[in-house]
Amino acid sequence: MTDRYQQFSTTGVGKALVKRLGLPNPTPLRRHRPGEPPLPGPALLGAAPGGRLLEQVGAVLKAAGAEVLTDPPPGGPAYGALVFDATGITSPEGLRALYDFFHPVIRSVAGSGRVVVLGTPPESAGEPGAAIAQRALEGFVRSVGKELKRGATAQLVYVADGHEDKAESTLRFLLSAKSAYVDAQVIRIGGHGGDAPDPQDWAAPLAGRVALVTGASRGIGAAIAEVLARDGAKVVLLDIPAQGADLVRVANEVGGLALQLDITAADAPHALVEFLTQRHGGVDIVVHNAGITRDKTLAKMTDSAWESVVQVNLACQLRVNDALLESGALRSGGRVIGVSSIAGIAGNVGQTNYAVSKAGVIGMVDAYAPRYAEKGITINAVAPGFIETRMTAAVPLVIREAGRRMNSMSQGGLPVDVAETVAWFAAPASGAVSGNVVRVCGQSLLGA
Amino acid sequence: MTDRYQQFSTTGVGKALVKRLGLPNPTPLRRHRPGEPPLPGPALLGAAPGGRLLEQVGAVLKAAGAEVLTDPPPGGPAYGALVFDATGITSPEGLRALYDFFHPVIRSVAGSGRVVVLGTPPESAGEPGAAIAQRALEGFVRSVGKELKRGATAQLVYVADGHEDKAESTLRFLLSAKSAYVDAQVIRIGGHGGDAPDPQDWAAPLAGRVALVTGASRGIGAAIAEVLARDGAKVVLLDIPAQGADLVRVANEVGGLALQLDITAADAPHALVEFLTQRHGGVDIVVHNAGITRDKTLAKMTDSAWESVVQVNLACQLRVNDALLESGALRSGGRVIGVSSIAGIAGNVGQTNYAVSKAGVIGMVDAYAPRYAEKGITINAVAPGFIETRMTAAVPLVIREAGRRMNSMSQGGLPVDVAETVAWFAAPASGAVSGNVVRVCGQSLLGA
Repeated sequence: MTDRYQQFSTTGVGKALVKRLGLPNPTPLRRHRPGEPPLPGPALLGAAPGGRLLEQVGAVLKAAGAEVLTDPPPGGPAYGALVFDATGITSPEGLRALYDFFHPVIRSVAGSGRVVVLGTPPESAGEPGAAIAQRALEGFVRSVGKELKRGATAQLVYVADGHEDKAESTLRFLLSAKSAYVDAQVIRIGGHGGDAPDPQDWAAPLAGRVALVTGASRGIGAAIAEVLARDGAKVVLLDIPAQGADLVRVANEVGGLALQLDITAADAPHALVEFLTQRHGGVDIVVHNAGITRDKTLAKMTDSAWESVVQVNLACQLRVNDALLESGALRSGGRVIGVSSIAGIAGNVGQTNYAVSKAGVIGMVDAYAPRYAEKGITINAVAPGFIETRMTAAVPLVIREAGRRMNSMSQGGLPVDVAETVAWFAAPASGAVSGNVVRVCGQSLLGA
Repeated sequence: MTDRYQQFSTTGVGKALVKRLGLPNPTPLRRHRPGEPPLPGPALLGAAPGGRLLEQVGAVLKAAGAEVLTDPPPGGPAYGALVFDATGITSPEGLRALYDFFHPVIRSVAGSGRVVVLGTPPESAGEPGAAIAQRALEGFVRSVGKELKRGATAQLVYVADGHEDKAESTLRFLLSAKSAYVDAQVIRIGGHGGDAPDPQDWAAPLAGRVALVTGASRGIGAAIAEVLARDGAKVVLLDIPAQGADLVRVANEVGGLALQLDITAADAPHALVEFLTQRHGGVDIVVHNAGITRDKTLAKMTDSAWESVVQVNLACQLRVNDALLESGALRSGGRVIGVSSIAGIAGNVGQTNYAVSKAGVIGMVDAYAPRYAEKGITINAVAPGFIETRMTAAVPLVIREAGRRMNSMSQGGLPVDVAETVAWFAAPASGAVSGNVVRVCGQSLLGA
């Protein structure tokens, strides 16, 4: 689970070689530590004329503890963030405002700094010229993400009309070190929006919430349990009995309850409902993290490899969702979070079964988001790219190195990067965030 | 414009080296020649129980001149196509039918063979289980696209309920050598559907139609003009006066009219309407192919580089669309076709301006498709990947080779590959195909 190349590249000899040979240069990413400022420098805030978000965004930045500038000072500091409200742009010609704001200052973004562009969802932007300009923002952000160096990221956040006051949890996440490995993503707020109450304490946004995390005995699942517990949730950690020892260890570390259960068993959904109801009176956050791989090309794949992957990674999740909802165990204000994958988006050799299941998770988000909205429940998914785990450590060297370096960060992410993204979805304050699939991939080149 | 590596790899020494060293192995792609059979072998046709497309698809295949099998014969021939109707799949468990059909025969796909999976658009598939299973098909097709060798491709075609009889032009395109460089695409039929009259002659599907092609003096634009003329259209070729000599030459070659006009000029839309109305009484097909690049990173980009790219590649197209529609010059049954780019989808270093304009073209398709539907007009776009042109020949060697090889075909496409895709959109029989952005990229790894 160590990236020896990255370690080497920060040594004296390593630095020289990286520069001389034009090798990938993976800057150590700034990650969240309680008590540290959210940004590595002041935030510069701007807007195209007619924007509707500037005031709220400025207030959020200040509330989060950031220094906010509205004019570039002479000399130009290293900016912790460049934030631009593009909602006022209503034509292709108007996109010039993007250039005017970013061109003079883009060079001054600090390491692990943040670029955030805010827009109106094209599908609700009204006249074609406005819809087209808003859609065009995506090309800008994805290019800027590739141009930024030293761990800086760029994101596009579409805020639906009338949801200006519901972007705080999202902006706090993106404008912090918690989103270290999230890059060049397009996030929609308000499409299936519900209530988004502010927490009493932004350092414990999940206080009083009960969370279920499947596949929690190690890797990404363990990191999710840990971060949700850090944020104040009571966590139920689920894994198969064969993982029992690891599961209990992690559960003890995070002060949660271990539940050994084969989630694909016919009576598992019922048993789960019973457990959650008896122990905690229900559940607020469900993270479908359990997943397996059984890789073979389609010609060589066995039927059991197909069946087991589809069962664990997709089919049983629908049964659990339905049981939790029908029994009332999943409470109003609930948060369901799936784990998709880059392979579910782009496909992969040897993973027809896995890619089917992970594309299905995206389908799950699409299908349930409008239905859940009526009940004040959100559903979203993370799609990890190359994350440093025991699973990826077992990948052959050349393929592993390709996966690690073929992204804007030139490095793999950590399980905590996925976990922080899950925690953002899980927050009560993220009630207007539903129907999103957000990649945690450092802007991997791999797409679809 | 030659791919010397590909030429070398087909020599005796080249073949041996490619095999020994595991180098990319770019098979020469089968491309359309009039009179040749559409497929390189028989088509095997199957369906999940409850499907609604099998009959129509079988009829289309036969009408197109293909031999159609419904059971794999012993020994298994080299299949020209594997076609599977997955519309009957209504749950994740039901996806097993995909495995059952493809697993025994996927090895037997011929070089430049075709895999086509047909589904129901997830957004209109009804119950969550069905919607999720239909969405999952995408992971399958994208993985199969990567597993297939020797120029074979895989596609997913979503046919909306009630549009079963409007898929012929699309199936004929995908199940032919015309779609040589189109791989792992998701195509929707019927979302903004209009009339889709069959042509009198499938060899001249554009007979009697008038087509405008901008940027037609060379490269992709010239190829588009040529293919549209081959398919029976009267073509008006437009380019800037500085390209006049080349433009006239291409116009003469295709028997079309040359129009020298700077499309960004204020009075250009009016002049264009006048020309089309006087010469041909209007226009049926508009291909917005004219495009420029002015690459620099955002920090070094000039404002004129930003402005000119956004003007030529996006803004002036909206003015032309509006002028053609308001004047009535664009007739009912019209076809508008934009040219986006992989850079507009994934972003690119040094192309914030270009990526903005090309993402805007996708926005143009999204915004106009529902509006045009009322008038019986369709709008779609192609998004070329690495295409062998004078523009890409000027790219530095290492970057050029990366672009050429980083796709499922291990080679660049040809201008004719983009042109054939445009001609499919342009056909009267494609009346139910609107709102699509189809990549012509050989399943480039680059995505978003």
